[in-house]
Amino acid sequence: MSPEQNTTNKSEESKCTTLAASMDILTKHITRALEDLDVDAVSDMLDIILGANGVFVMGTGRSGLVGRAFATRLMHLGLRVYVVGESTTPALRKGDVVVAISGSGETRSIVDLGRVIKEIGATLIVVTSNPGSSLGKTADKVVKIFGRSKDGGGDYLARHLLGQYAKLSELAPLGTTFEISTLVFLDAAIAEMMTRTGKQSTDLEDMHDKLQ
Amino acid sequence: MSPEQNTTNKSEESKCTTLAASMDILTKHITRALEDLDVDAVSDMLDIILGANGVFVMGTGRSGLVGRAFATRLMHLGLRVYVVGESTTPALRKGDVVVAISGSGETRSIVDLGRVIKEIGATLIVVTSNPGSSLGKTADKVVKIFGRSKDGGGDYLARHLLGQYAKLSELAPLGTTFEISTLVFLDAAIAEMMTRTGKQSTDLEDMHDKLQ
Amino acid sequence: MSPEQNTTNKSEESKCTTLAASMDILTKHITRALEDLDVDAVSDMLDIILGANGVFVMGTGRSGLVGRAFATRLMHLGLRVYVVGESTTPALRKGDVVVAISGSGETRSIVDLGRVIKEIGATLIVVTSNPGSSLGKTADKVVKIFGRSKDGGGDYLARHLLGQYAKLSELAPLGTTFEISTLVFLDAAIAEMMTRTGKQSTDLEDMHDKLQ
Amino acid sequence: MSPEQNTTNKSEESKCTTLAASMDILTKHITRALEDLDVDAVSDMLDIILGANGVFVMGTGRSGLVGRAFATRLMHLGLRVYVVGESTTPALRKGDVVVAISGSGETRSIVDLGRVIKEIGATLIVVTSNPGSSLGKTADKVVKIFGRSKDGGGDYLARHLLGQYAKLSELAPLGTTFEISTLVFLDAAIAEMMTRTGKQSTDLEDMHDKLQ
Repeated sequence: MSPEQNTTNKSEESKCTTLAASMDILTKHITRALEDLDVDAVSDMLDIILGANGVFVMGTGRSGLVGRAFATRLMHLGLRVYVVGESTTPALRKGDVVVAISGSGETRSIVDLGRVIKEIGATLIVVTSNPGSSLGKTADKVVKIFGRSKDGGGDYLARHLLGQYAKLSELAPLGTTFEISTLVFLDAAIAEMMTRTGKQSTDLEDMHDKLQ
Repeated sequence: MSPEQNTTNKSEESKCTTLAASMDILTKHITRALEDLDVDAVSDMLDIILGANGVFVMGTGRSGLVGRAFATRLMHLGLRVYVVGESTTPALRKGDVVVAISGSGETRSIVDLGRVIKEIGATLIVVTSNPGSSLGKTADKVVKIFGRSKDGGGDYLARHLLGQYAKLSELAPLGTTFEISTLVFLDAAIAEMMTRTGKQSTDLEDMHDKLQ
Repeated sequence: MSPEQNTTNKSEESKCTTLAASMDILTKHITRALEDLDVDAVSDMLDIILGANGVFVMGTGRSGLVGRAFATRLMHLGLRVYVVGESTTPALRKGDVVVAISGSGETRSIVDLGRVIKEIGATLIVVTSNPGSSLGKTADKVVKIFGRSKDGGGDYLARHLLGQYAKLSELAPLGTTFEISTLVFLDAAIAEMMTRTGKQSTDLEDMHDKLQ
Repeated sequence: MSPEQNTTNKSEESKCTTLAASMDILTKHITRALEDLDVDAVSDMLDIILGANGVFVMGTGRSGLVGRAFATRLMHLGLRVYVVGESTTPALRKGDVVVAISGSGETRSIVDLGRVIKEIGATLIVVTSNPGSSLGKTADKVVKIFGRSKDGGGDYLARHLLGQYAKLSELAPLGTTFEISTLVFLDAAIAEMMTRTGKQSTDLEDMHDKLQ
């Protein structure tokens, strides 16, 4: 686990060349993912969220953390919002919407719950890199995020983005590009919802948890 | 909470102009924040993390979620890593390092714990937009992230980035720019640590939680 | 870490004599703690909770887990309830009540937040073994739970309960007796609130999270 | 939601008769559940846990909180322990043990993961009121907890315990009796493991998270 210690390597390391390459590819990827967004699908997604009785955010692992970050802002906007699996999350009902985040669209526990959501009659929005996945096919509305999902499969990243870099997976392992692109997208969606609901940054600040 | 419903507004909304403006400013901000990084400070930070007995990640709110996303990848790298406040996090000891994430550097509970960390004799790394903050001043190593912190204070975003947009706070409310820039930075830091430790993406995949 | 392996010990172990002794002392302790409760204080606590705009539950470590278990049932009862530190917990306001759980009443982060709560003008209920603690002294209402707190201090367990057992701390280490007595007390408080609000078990079942 | 306000009811309420009845039935239930334990099964469970490479604790809702409380103490004992679903939980492997807590033994997500656990070749211990359930049947070792599970089904509580009280479900709604009996059992199991590993209360205190 400890890095090699000889002087040459140290010197190489201190330049953090991989860091720089990764930052380059990550920002290019985010930009590409945002350009690639289907704005009509996003607009529909926001209409559904703003018109729902309650919003339930769902995801596992790092996608779940991105979902929580989105949920925090939805709460700041004044919506009734819950994270699936937390202690005070109530029963999902017809009229509620579930926003599920899964790069592969095949996360087992999320897919299983997808079926329960449809039985209850709630609306299911899926944010995924794989619209053709099990979860994508169950959804009422899919927002596709350009990106390699954790489980790979398709070749979602255009080769030309990589350029001189040999392997994307060494600069952005596993679901990294999906997760960060989704976070940036969802934060921009919050700004759009602020406009639609007439909320200012100060309104959000007023809702911000003071017990931290 | 419901958006206005007349046809003109609907048509405006469907273009998602705020979404586009927000995505533009967020990607510019991330790029700017990464260019602004002090690479020597980052290199030192990674040396400290790779040389530590255990790594403890700490943050509240959305900064805490970014910290958890980083912690997940540190675990994938094979490090002993814990999130402060989770059920199985053990006692911090001398030889351990704490990575604290706080845009303002003034989050009350984090600042208080900063003192405890120093008493224990562990190393404190702070990722913040405010190196001069209470937390920044307590740190053994600070990595500064260009950005507006939640509590404002300085004018961290260069005016020229905003360009035609009137108010950053309406396109990226509260600590948004800090949080997303920090996530991208930390993900690039993971790539750098993969190089330093000779880990491949497949090594990380092998460590990935299978019970999801 | 591995237990001694010789035959005699194995045979001793299979009888689980410490398990039996611990179960005996734990149930006696719970019974004693419940007998010891100040019913008037509990009744006031429940009045405050049922009359509040929102209920915020707060605690660290295992006391925090007990608090979350209570919060789940308050949600089932139909109350607006939040756990301090979770992603969708909004700003605390005047008219809200905070239920803080701390055996010692001296948990640093909880004590610090106690001051913030008073500044906001919310009501603070403290469940603790140490009414004279920093947190106890800040509270609007204290419910005392008979028991050894994590940080010891007083001799809260009557000697005669221990009887033949040499050391309570080896049968119920750290805050164990406080935590389990508090959980049982709070579950009985839920039953009392069901009566006061006319809720049936089926009403709670109807609120139960279906996405598990 | 607000309780009835007339004087007679207030007076009745201040006696907290339901609270008292619930506390009575809960302590009787815990006592009964502990008497009912199969000590050989418990002893085997503890052998498996102490001999495992890593311990993974799993549960949803309040059973998950009980699992986390157990995981905290296993960490205090010095074991490698993880909670399924938390940010730093690594891949499960052969040689690890999963402790799953589910009253009904039919919690969807837990049952699904039960199959994955077996495929990986890890050992599965199930703590449940329903040994004949899907989860119980998948387990390598079952510890049965006397009690009504959330999903009812069997008549797990002997009628005679209720005595004068009309309905258990109004004094201990949903999975309450399972959850509290399981917590007390697992805390007694910790005491037994202290004996088997020669750990003192002070050893556990030394491992206790100091950043609270």
